[in-house]
Amino acid sequence: MDNAKHTEFIGLKKVAVNDSFWTPFMERIRTQVIPYQWEALNDRVPGADPSYCVRNFKLAAELTHPELDYGVPRDIGHGGCVFQDSDFAKWIEAVAYSLTWYPDPELEKTLDHTIDIICNAQQSDGYLNTYYIINGMDKRFTNLKDNHELYCFGHLLEGAVAYYEATGKRKLLDALIRYADCIDKLIGAEEGKLHGYPGHEIAEMALVRLYAITKDEKHLKLAQYFINQRGQEPLYFKEETERNKNHFYWRDSYMQYQYYQAGKPVREQHIAKGHAVRAVYLYSGMADLARLTGDEELLTACEALFTNISKRQMYITGGIGQSPYGEAFSYDYSLPNDTAYAETCAAIGLAFFARRMSAIAPRGVYADVLEKTLYNSIISGMSLDGKTFFYVNPLEALPDACLKDHRMSHVRIKRQKWFGCACCPPNLARIIASLGSYIHSENAGAVYTHLFVGSKTKVSPGGTDLTINIDTKYPWEGLVNISFSLKGAARFRYGLRIPGWCRNYTLKLNGADAAFSIEDTYAVFNREWKDGDSISAVFDMPVTFVQANPKVREDAGKTAVMRGPVVYCLEEADNGKELCRLHVGQAADISVKHEKAFLEGVTLISMTGKREKDWSEDELYRAMEDSAWEDTTLRFIPYYAWTNRSPGEMTVWVNQ
Amino acid sequence: MDNAKHTEFIGLKKVAVNDSFWTPFMERIRTQVIPYQWEALNDRVPGADPSYCVRNFKLAAELTHPELDYGVPRDIGHGGCVFQDSDFAKWIEAVAYSLTWYPDPELEKTLDHTIDIICNAQQSDGYLNTYYIINGMDKRFTNLKDNHELYCFGHLLEGAVAYYEATGKRKLLDALIRYADCIDKLIGAEEGKLHGYPGHEIAEMALVRLYAITKDEKHLKLAQYFINQRGQEPLYFKEETERNKNHFYWRDSYMQYQYYQAGKPVREQHIAKGHAVRAVYLYSGMADLARLTGDEELLTACEALFTNISKRQMYITGGIGQSPYGEAFSYDYSLPNDTAYAETCAAIGLAFFARRMSAIAPRGVYADVLEKTLYNSIISGMSLDGKTFFYVNPLEALPDACLKDHRMSHVRIKRQKWFGCACCPPNLARIIASLGSYIHSENAGAVYTHLFVGSKTKVSPGGTDLTINIDTKYPWEGLVNISFSLKGAARFRYGLRIPGWCRNYTLKLNGADAAFSIEDTYAVFNREWKDGDSISAVFDMPVTFVQANPKVREDAGKTAVMRGPVVYCLEEADNGKELCRLHVGQAADISVKHEKAFLEGVTLISMTGKREKDWSEDELYRAMEDSAWEDTTLRFIPYYAWTNRSPGEMTVWVNQ
Repeated sequence: MDNAKHTEFIGLKKVAVNDSFWTPFMERIRTQVIPYQWEALNDRVPGADPSYCVRNFKLAAELTHPELDYGVPRDIGHGGCVFQDSDFAKWIEAVAYSLTWYPDPELEKTLDHTIDIICNAQQSDGYLNTYYIINGMDKRFTNLKDNHELYCFGHLLEGAVAYYEATGKRKLLDALIRYADCIDKLIGAEEGKLHGYPGHEIAEMALVRLYAITKDEKHLKLAQYFINQRGQEPLYFKEETERNKNHFYWRDSYMQYQYYQAGKPVREQHIAKGHAVRAVYLYSGMADLARLTGDEELLTACEALFTNISKRQMYITGGIGQSPYGEAFSYDYSLPNDTAYAETCAAIGLAFFARRMSAIAPRGVYADVLEKTLYNSIISGMSLDGKTFFYVNPLEALPDACLKDHRMSHVRIKRQKWFGCACCPPNLARIIASLGSYIHSENAGAVYTHLFVGSKTKVSPGGTDLTINIDTKYPWEGLVNISFSLKGAARFRYGLRIPGWCRNYTLKLNGADAAFSIEDTYAVFNREWKDGDSISAVFDMPVTFVQANPKVREDAGKTAVMRGPVVYCLEEADNGKELCRLHVGQAADISVKHEKAFLEGVTLISMTGKREKDWSEDELYRAMEDSAWEDTTLRFIPYYAWTNRSPGEMTVWVNQ
Repeated sequence: MDNAKHTEFIGLKKVAVNDSFWTPFMERIRTQVIPYQWEALNDRVPGADPSYCVRNFKLAAELTHPELDYGVPRDIGHGGCVFQDSDFAKWIEAVAYSLTWYPDPELEKTLDHTIDIICNAQQSDGYLNTYYIINGMDKRFTNLKDNHELYCFGHLLEGAVAYYEATGKRKLLDALIRYADCIDKLIGAEEGKLHGYPGHEIAEMALVRLYAITKDEKHLKLAQYFINQRGQEPLYFKEETERNKNHFYWRDSYMQYQYYQAGKPVREQHIAKGHAVRAVYLYSGMADLARLTGDEELLTACEALFTNISKRQMYITGGIGQSPYGEAFSYDYSLPNDTAYAETCAAIGLAFFARRMSAIAPRGVYADVLEKTLYNSIISGMSLDGKTFFYVNPLEALPDACLKDHRMSHVRIKRQKWFGCACCPPNLARIIASLGSYIHSENAGAVYTHLFVGSKTKVSPGGTDLTINIDTKYPWEGLVNISFSLKGAARFRYGLRIPGWCRNYTLKLNGADAAFSIEDTYAVFNREWKDGDSISAVFDMPVTFVQANPKVREDAGKTAVMRGPVVYCLEEADNGKELCRLHVGQAADISVKHEKAFLEGVTLISMTGKREKDWSEDELYRAMEDSAWEDTTLRFIPYYAWTNRSPGEMTVWVNQ
């Protein structure tokens, strides 16, 4: 593998997003989510369960430095889950990104003050986890499998890196480097160290980001150790469980150690299994390492896992993790719509994985998935006012079922303000706030555009500084204008993704036909560019009826409506109750209309469909020859915007 | 309500079944199930979990009469579940029925000997439950909600009544009368008594059967008390739970006390809820009381409940209790096929309920359900060799799902030998062994034929003794010949059910057209009959494509194939894997063929359908315009006969 060919991520500081679709989302994160979460982390939201996050760090700091007094009683104990620190860390990361594109000295001051508290909680050996600092350090690292120590470490490290990149301030980064060194002294291959790895992955990704700053091989090697050691015999989690008499919840489950992706070495894992967020975080870390080290075996595993997910275990919305049982993958082509778990965080993790695979090789399959998750399953996790959130993103929702059918007891038909386990809202904040860095990637000789987001991005292919400007009304319109600002002229390869959903498109260079090659569904222009050169892409965006592979039992005889990357759905608010009675029929008279004032601006689709009629309430089965139909207008809205009005039924898949 | 109009059941001793379809099932019960279960009850089946049933009674007898020695160590404790006695009781009942139509002195001797043991376990006050006799009598009646004391009493009483009716022997019956008196002294409306009722119903039905023998009002009144007191405020189960610090498993469930049908008075219950077997046993008891007492309010509740079940919560097979969560009903029109629970015992209980409603008023809706359950969901519970059994009867089965999808963890794709909780096999034995008494019912002026089963039955409408002979190859052929043997002539009304599935039929009286009226889908002949009179009914039996009410989401766009009362299915053994890819299409070339040597004799259906083609393994979603099809032959077998060959996929509902 030629490492030089690997594309690199583009730092968020080089991007200014100004997009009719995404800027409002980013503004919601900045103006709603980040301030609200700060209140939540400080237990100041009336009526909500306390988060305890800030309190835990204050208490840990007081216990570490008895002379400090943050006003937290010293006997109050640790609050919330064992992984509570991570919510705080995700918030720090989101704030860091937000400061990158919207400087806010007041917010930065708040964060600096908070970082002081965090650093005051750090132990002399670098250890920094409030659960064990408060509950007793003798128990630390005795339950890597379930107690999320290395997960919290990973999230704190991601936050520290992001804040350093945003502000250049090193205090939190240095603290996390000390924590990484502490972990490195205790966990690793050498005799006397614990031969363990994270029960919930993320530290792998985070350490690679740290290595990009420190260039300290120790950090890369720790990430490698976590990945290479995972699932090696004898299984660490098995030994740890026996040694420390830990509980093993999945003992009698079909998942066993694969719940943690730790039942066999990662290079032998080709089918996505177990807890979905853990899984895609691991695969993202594996992709990071494959990119940096050229490890072909690891790349092969990543490719197989990506194929397995995207071609066999992914909802049409980009949602993954079908099963509420363990918030997990289940098995190929099993994609139930009503009992779907499809956690917001898992879709976010899939975007991480897809982005990293794109960075190894710009292939359309990767960015197609990235785009799919972003425009559908990820943003469905947040209400359009930025105030409420979904953990679970079903593709079919029924108010009755959530109340009366135990299989759907995890499904909500209205987004919630906050959760006891509030992983999804801050995860949404950090991905949307950092969206700018997902648009392009570059390597020595080339720039690739993966996402069509209005923006200006500084890149330097082959050393030439230039700005790529994108102007578009995507995803509502298929016209994407790209122009280049540079001094003089420069030769470099430029690759523009042709979206997988698009069957017909035209590309013009400076208004005229031009030569390009198609490489892995990217239109690649290899030429000398000069200031003002522009590409105009028109991606035909008809309403498309999509069918699932007939192996997907749950979608047999059904169709989903898409336009561009956007998946649509029927809602009760527009179509009445009993959506299961509706059929697209011949789908005559399809009309497409953009409504600026509706659902914060959406393109709506309507068409004439059919409704089964003449069934009495007391007729459960009858001969098909008695079927009767009436015409009805079907009104579709984008899936991500569902249940922003009165809650009710919703379905993505509609009877043919 | 005019009680005189209520029909009465026909005693099993008056019936001789000789039917090409049912006699083999009855013979399997007699020659396979009853002997096998006797071995199981005695813990003599190698490799199977012990039942402990006989051991428990022996131990209880030894503890009650220390001079006895059955060879059971006195400190060995009670074995099995708290309701273990009931398995034994069901076996006794099945044996009693079997002895009615197939005398077997050896078996009768075995049973008499066993009854001696049971009676030796009885306490001086009549109490007779091995769990509490062994574990401590101080705890008896402290957990009516969950500990099945009154359930075991009810089953023992059913067994005792059946054995008395079969043999005239009173020993077990008298023991149970003493037990009923014991319960009556402790439970009831009077001050100082417990104001309780069974947590698992059946005693209500059993007490009505006892009352039919004893004519002792006390027995009828105890049944009435159980039914009338149920769900009255203050809730007994709530008080009992608090008083005795019992566990309440359903505290946080949407079912709450309705799991036990005890959340409100039974007359206010119009929607079937909670544990399905409990529910239909209760409703059967309510129907018994409504029939005997003319209680209109109770009858109205029964009618509403029957309608709710049969028109909104019943699978096309007659299976009920959709949800594995609590083995329970869930809600109207929610009928998932793959996660179905549809317990064999629940279908049996529905047959009890339908039969009792028929006995109040012969309406086709009742016998249609009775027939549906018998030919489909009940007998699917047993393998064709009578050796293995289903607890759960799904309408769609996938080997992979049972192993890898937690929602289907209760589903088996092969019947099992025995269960830890072995309620279904002996329940199957007792209903099939007593099938003869389900064929007709009579009241003072009329005889009604509900089921078309080859048989000779003695009835006495209006005091005239006669025999009704039925000769038929039903359900494989629609010709049913009925003839009457009597001395001289007599006027009585005779009602022949026109099955709900039948659209066209002809009826001939002595070979010619004759006058009859249609009353509630029964063809009623009101005339003077003489010896040798015969009715020849031809029910047209085409293959029918059935559709579910479009409110049933899970069946949208699908069809089920029926012929007569028999529901068909596709099995992997005949149609290959991935049944979800198959469509009936235009269903050309339907062929129907009876195969005597296949699956113990079944009529098979085959037709040309369609299979979706040209999908790669790595294509999960694509535009519908790319659909392609190929012709394929669909081969259907009767649902009840599924998985009697190599286990694999099965589906009842097929894509249209």
